[in-house]
Amino acid sequence: MRTKKNTDTESISKVRRKRKEIPTAEELVEQLLNGNTTALARAITLVESSQLADQQKASWIIEKCLLQKSNAIRIGITGVPGVGKSTFIETFGKKLTALGEKVAVLAVDPTSSQSKGSILGDKTRMQELVKDPNAFIRPSPSSETLGGVARKTRESIILCEAAGYSVVLIETVGVGQSETAVHGMVDFFLLLKLAGAGDELQGIKRGIMEMADLLVINKADGTNKEAARTAKTEFKRALHLFPPKPNGWVPNVMMCSAIEGTGIDEIWEIIREYVNQGRKSGYLSSNRKNQNKSWLLQTIDDRLKQNFYAHKSVKKKLGTLLNDVMEEKISPFQAADKLLRIYQEKP
Amino acid sequence: MRTKKNTDTESISKVRRKRKEIPTAEELVEQLLNGNTTALARAITLVESSQLADQQKASWIIEKCLLQKSNAIRIGITGVPGVGKSTFIETFGKKLTALGEKVAVLAVDPTSSQSKGSILGDKTRMQELVKDPNAFIRPSPSSETLGGVARKTRESIILCEAAGYSVVLIETVGVGQSETAVHGMVDFFLLLKLAGAGDELQGIKRGIMEMADLLVINKADGTNKEAARTAKTEFKRALHLFPPKPNGWVPNVMMCSAIEGTGIDEIWEIIREYVNQGRKSGYLSSNRKNQNKSWLLQTIDDRLKQNFYAHKSVKKKLGTLLNDVMEEKISPFQAADKLLRIYQEKP
Repeated sequence: MRTKKNTDTESISKVRRKRKEIPTAEELVEQLLNGNTTALARAITLVESSQLADQQKASWIIEKCLLQKSNAIRIGITGVPGVGKSTFIETFGKKLTALGEKVAVLAVDPTSSQSKGSILGDKTRMQELVKDPNAFIRPSPSSETLGGVARKTRESIILCEAAGYSVVLIETVGVGQSETAVHGMVDFFLLLKLAGAGDELQGIKRGIMEMADLLVINKADGTNKEAARTAKTEFKRALHLFPPKPNGWVPNVMMCSAIEGTGIDEIWEIIREYVNQGRKSGYLSSNRKNQNKSWLLQTIDDRLKQNFYAHKSVKKKLGTLLNDVMEEKISPFQAADKLLRIYQEKP
Repeated sequence: MRTKKNTDTESISKVRRKRKEIPTAEELVEQLLNGNTTALARAITLVESSQLADQQKASWIIEKCLLQKSNAIRIGITGVPGVGKSTFIETFGKKLTALGEKVAVLAVDPTSSQSKGSILGDKTRMQELVKDPNAFIRPSPSSETLGGVARKTRESIILCEAAGYSVVLIETVGVGQSETAVHGMVDFFLLLKLAGAGDELQGIKRGIMEMADLLVINKADGTNKEAARTAKTEFKRALHLFPPKPNGWVPNVMMCSAIEGTGIDEIWEIIREYVNQGRKSGYLSSNRKNQNKSWLLQTIDDRLKQNFYAHKSVKKKLGTLLNDVMEEKISPFQAADKLLRIYQEKP
């Protein structure tokens, strides 16, 4: 009886599955751990979904994937639009797969949900890499907030690593807050620059330069070579002004031409050296631990605020109190007290 | 009967009050609005108290004080130790009272609670100003957190203004986060500098320079004058590199000698000009509104976190989960989910 019933259920579920072609979470994990890219893509889609059922499935899959040990290197790559990020990743990625690495390319770009995929949205920009069986490319998830995009990308890293990818490249657009988010999820942070952009030493980009473990001047080819050399000297001097990194690493400035393929070997060499040093000193693992801790605290913080501001009675009262505070009719601290008392009462 | 009883109660309370000398909140407000400095000092003590009863009394007093209209100017004054802040405030304060202003001096210095009052703790450093009937000096409140110190100082500003002070100077020590807090409670932010400190153009002080509405090179006297002139040129050039202020104000660099009393008139002239412009354009009032809004949001944020981390069951589980997250046994997002579920259940 028991056997019969099982067989029945199985055959029914097989039919259903065939029709809908939706694998179970267990099946996805099994396939994903075998390096199946369709399963990986499907799991990432679950991570990116806003449906509660999908999210629960994603959570379960991630927990299973976390049990896998991985030695993958996570590299953040940033630079302003036009610096040649896609070409760099194409050339760099091909180099890595030729060396036997399995390369996953993800992206954090909160603007792409509005502009419908400015980064990696067009896979044709990486024509060679996209055909490489040892490369996996995934465009930036869409979400209304940077926090949402970053969280999804961060969970996708876990999935890629469980699927056997040994290098995960995370691309970001180099214009704002996304760089901090990416810096908080990678082992190594690479900043792409162009020659003749001396003005950028000042202004808002300083924070991004400060995070870089390596500065690469791209498009150092043809008539541009001389300018690249000058820029290299300038950037080197500028990097000296920054406070030293906690791990003692001194960021270097290198030149490359992604189109001609020059300088790429040296960049990978530097990253390998960084990783070796970091593994020996224990910095890499302690850095990951700190990153995990920050993500936990940041998520708690975000969710506490989300819950508070979504609270019905708080919502109702917030406008008036905000106005009273701005007009100095009530002190900000008393207004906060009132709102928190409302929040602590029943919804 | 009723009259008799009332008289009895009154006489008892009179005796009690006489013995303990504790005025009621109503009495404090009345005296404070009349400019009584003892009442002002007492009200500030209530603001600074950690006793719940005192805090409730303080809240009530502040609400009454907020009803008073004040045209007071709030000026933040910062600079590294040794730059001569106390001497500057002494000279500047005397100048202002001579012009008929009533000057209150407060401080934000989270370190003073450990070092037992590094700022203003020793009122003898302002020997003249402390004797001035039109000046009121209050050392930094003690608190374990910058947030606590800042909040207390911010509420004390309200009390000083209700007591009729027309200029409130807020001193801070110029080494870290306190400057951001002070910048968020003043109309004008003055940065004191010394000549020959060119190195400070780089590094962590940049953020403080960016907030300054006026940069003053102190100790421009004697053999130091020439160096001060050079520094003035250097600082002017450095200020040019910063993005323009939202109100269009271009920060100037001036020289002064607090000991000789030179340059002080010109500084006050600049501040007056800033205030006049800001009142005409409406910037000053919109800036205050934005500051109030920020304080409300910041307070809500702080309190939400405080409540969360003080929650018994959260406290109990946090250590284990934090550890699991750091060791990558569980994703930060799932750990956050677990903790928030614990928090949302009964305590």
